[in-house]
Amino acid sequence: MKIISLPARDQWKTYLKRPIEDQSHILSTAKDILEEVRMQGDDALRSLARKFHEPVLQDLMVSSEEIRQGEREVTDHLKQSIQTAYKNIKAFHEKQVTPIEVIETMPGITCWRKSVGIEKVGLYIPGGTAPLFSTVLMLGIPAKIAGCREVIMCTPPMKDGRVHPAILYAAKLVGITTIIKAGGAQAIAAMAFGTASVPVVHKIFGPGNAYVTAAKQLVQMQGVAIDMPAGPSEVCVLADETSHAGYIAADLLSQAEHGADSQVMLVSCDADLVQQVMVSLEQQLAALPRKDLARKALDNSRAFIVSNREEAIDLVNAYAPEHLVICCSNALQVADQIINAGSVFIGKFTPESVGDYASGTNHTLPTNGFSRAYSGVSVDSFVKKITFQQLSEEGLNNIAPTVMSMAEAEGMVAHSNAVRIRLESK
Amino acid sequence: MKIISLPARDQWKTYLKRPIEDQSHILSTAKDILEEVRMQGDDALRSLARKFHEPVLQDLMVSSEEIRQGEREVTDHLKQSIQTAYKNIKAFHEKQVTPIEVIETMPGITCWRKSVGIEKVGLYIPGGTAPLFSTVLMLGIPAKIAGCREVIMCTPPMKDGRVHPAILYAAKLVGITTIIKAGGAQAIAAMAFGTASVPVVHKIFGPGNAYVTAAKQLVQMQGVAIDMPAGPSEVCVLADETSHAGYIAADLLSQAEHGADSQVMLVSCDADLVQQVMVSLEQQLAALPRKDLARKALDNSRAFIVSNREEAIDLVNAYAPEHLVICCSNALQVADQIINAGSVFIGKFTPESVGDYASGTNHTLPTNGFSRAYSGVSVDSFVKKITFQQLSEEGLNNIAPTVMSMAEAEGMVAHSNAVRIRLESK
Repeated sequence: MKIISLPARDQWKTYLKRPIEDQSHILSTAKDILEEVRMQGDDALRSLARKFHEPVLQDLMVSSEEIRQGEREVTDHLKQSIQTAYKNIKAFHEKQVTPIEVIETMPGITCWRKSVGIEKVGLYIPGGTAPLFSTVLMLGIPAKIAGCREVIMCTPPMKDGRVHPAILYAAKLVGITTIIKAGGAQAIAAMAFGTASVPVVHKIFGPGNAYVTAAKQLVQMQGVAIDMPAGPSEVCVLADETSHAGYIAADLLSQAEHGADSQVMLVSCDADLVQQVMVSLEQQLAALPRKDLARKALDNSRAFIVSNREEAIDLVNAYAPEHLVICCSNALQVADQIINAGSVFIGKFTPESVGDYASGTNHTLPTNGFSRAYSGVSVDSFVKKITFQQLSEEGLNNIAPTVMSMAEAEGMVAHSNAVRIRLESK
Repeated sequence: MKIISLPARDQWKTYLKRPIEDQSHILSTAKDILEEVRMQGDDALRSLARKFHEPVLQDLMVSSEEIRQGEREVTDHLKQSIQTAYKNIKAFHEKQVTPIEVIETMPGITCWRKSVGIEKVGLYIPGGTAPLFSTVLMLGIPAKIAGCREVIMCTPPMKDGRVHPAILYAAKLVGITTIIKAGGAQAIAAMAFGTASVPVVHKIFGPGNAYVTAAKQLVQMQGVAIDMPAGPSEVCVLADETSHAGYIAADLLSQAEHGADSQVMLVSCDADLVQQVMVSLEQQLAALPRKDLARKALDNSRAFIVSNREEAIDLVNAYAPEHLVICCSNALQVADQIINAGSVFIGKFTPESVGDYASGTNHTLPTNGFSRAYSGVSVDSFVKKITFQQLSEEGLNNIAPTVMSMAEAEGMVAHSNAVRIRLESK
């Protein structure tokens, strides 16, 4: 982790760069995979699995017996934990449902919005180096609250051809029964175009590697919605002299262990603290099973020493982190000045990992600076808000002169006529 | 307008096709334009204007004197209309602001979401065949309500190099002062990458032709957010024997006049009504200034005769129209069964054009079937919802076993450590 002391503002952009690899090769590979799945459906899913040294399966769909078997294999302790997380995530997301509110903008003119669940949605749960059953909760719970009629899930199988039991258990808890064993860009293609085993969906959610991300961006160009663009995961910690160096090092490492391309940033006015964090990082790192990944991530990472708190806050907003841990005095007031972040963790008892699993907030968040313009996943992500309007005769009379004069000024005479004919022949 | 009588369900997809041209040529032209603007900035904007036979300007930025002059040229009657529309749109959109609600998911664990305006947004207002000052209201009002700090606008100048006075007046009313004379894909590129005259933005909004749409999709791949993908405008009218054929014809024409690539659809169980609408279409069409465009749009359009109301509703949902006019008995109950539409107009006194201008709802809506997964523009489109969480010591104690067991089951030991270290060394 490189220490950058008192960086000049015009240097920030350089220091805040993400470790993103060149996308062009990845995009072109993903494009080929998309085309193969579009043309050959399930056969392509099987032959691509073979090509990528994944298990090749006859049945792509997880059977109900496999789901029951998965449930039996999860320990009671883990089941209980997943249930607690489920309860908290559900409680937080249920409050995101927007009730209908009818507004009379003028006498006789009523307008309202109604949230309607997207009919068919697809969730992608990565396999790879970790079985992310927590992501099943983070995507499945809001999908169900939103009222999506068809929720399907794709996830790559383990080496033995099975799906990780905890993923199956979480899916069952959420109420997802259509689970397909497919991973990577090919899974995204299957949900976008449909195959014999995989139903077509209108929107695709979920994290994944660079190929998954590229595939999501490509199908988005073809009209399938996606949750958000994604990049490697990241955290930024804002700390001061009151912070506990060990806590901060632990938070940085919990992000660094995600992958070699993760990035962790520390911002502080206190040079001593930064030094203590560096020492603690080395101590804690040694004991981690994923220490090789974490160490690579630390190579992409920086600790900034800045001259005052305002500058620290500006630097954080310029970085626009996915996760922001505010571990300093007056943390709540600092939080109030954050304008670019995915999810914010306030105070010394709030490590990032509580939000990754169970505090209630969603962990599918905008990375790569996308928090400047994107929100994390919520119930909003799974609904369309359709607008409605109904005018009485009085309402139409009230608005008619306005609509007609604006339409005519735009040269839209037929727009005006649609009002006029209703006034003239009732 | 072709009449399709009793189409079989497996034929719907074919009949509901949109008149979308092949995008590959458009995408490649847009890509070249993007690259030119990225490399050459304002010079590219000027040389592209020359190439596309647009006025070539020294000053790309509209001066405050031009804005004042524009205001003087708008008639009082039109000003009043724009003010009325402004008031209604503002009233409807202000109710979309989400207040902060703090939720305690477990004792000692509080979570909330806060809406924060996207710092820098760019609005694109098309020129072309009509001066769409109404779009200035539809994008500018929610941007200001959302609290976006920097709202800029690009719009192509008229042949004399000026911006249409009504566009300037609407911008002034909304409070937008940074207005750049640039149109097409090059305007999108300028807002995405920045030039000497055009500030960089984080999200780009607004309708436009196929090149504008392609440019928006391309910059989205490069990390700039966009409001939604777009296609030609469209309306679907659901009518029955109680409907007034003249009203329906007028509504269809008000959409058809948008452009040759617009599409208008009629769905009814009543063959007689459909015939009457066809007659009325011909009568009303003759008097329209934009009749050539409208007639071409009608060539892309269809009237469906179906056997019952349920089938009519299913057909509408399968089409997923941008605008839906429900002009039949029990219109409100029908509206309740709509799951795919951008904006819905209920009852005989609610022509689509009231929503295009002044009822209060937004007219920037998902076309091309995108209403299956996308909402129209609203205040939501201009904010990020950042999540926050704060745990007390009690809260961390309550959630610790859950987080640690889930993290360890996912193989994420550092995630677990971030909790453990806080329990062990306080």
